[in-house]
Amino acid sequence: MKFKVVVTPKKAVLDPQGNAVRDAMRHLGMPEVQSVRVGKCLEIDVAGGSVDLETRLHGLCRDLLSNPVIEDYALERNGMAPKTTARSRSKRR
Amino acid sequence: MKFKVVVTPKKAVLDPQGNAVRDAMRHLGMPEVQSVRVGKCLEIDVAGGSVDLETRLHGLCRDLLSNPVIEDYALERNGMAPKTTARSRSKRR
Repeated sequence: MKFKVVVTPKKAVLDPQGNAVRDAMRHLGMPEVQSVRVGKCLEIDVAGGSVDLETRLHGLCRDLLSNPVIEDYALERNGMAPKTTARSRSKRR
Repeated sequence: MKFKVVVTPKKAVLDPQGNAVRDAMRHLGMPEVQSVRVGKCLEIDVAGGSVDLETRLHGLCRDLLSNPVIEDYALERNGMAPKTTARSRSKRR
């Protein structure tokens, strides 16, 4: 079973890497670029599919794959629409 | 207009970062993880929408945002299904 995790910096957090990319794109022929945010994208291949798989995966997204202080994450299954998306805010214990 | 660019390492290329994440996930209670690939995810906000916008964006994806030797990219518009997806292979000039 394949999962996709997208980790993005929170809106309120500065993204210097994104700003550098934005400036570079503006200089390379796309002056209409307004903003760029850079995040991580993880493709995870999991064998089998136990009942609490997604719960445990959400736990690892929060504890290992993202930093809930400055990042949000979204968890999608099989490249489907992110029905199971969860922001770290709402999943924090 | 919002675009999303996902840059992933090619299948044939080793991904040590992904392997490190896979091993960490296995040690932290998910032994069923088979593989992890780590890529970049860029959210790009563009003002207006000229005709050749996507063409120019594909050019920048190839020249600036990805390394076509070891990476593939996918370009999606507005979080829609990647109809406009293009692998760097097929778009190389």
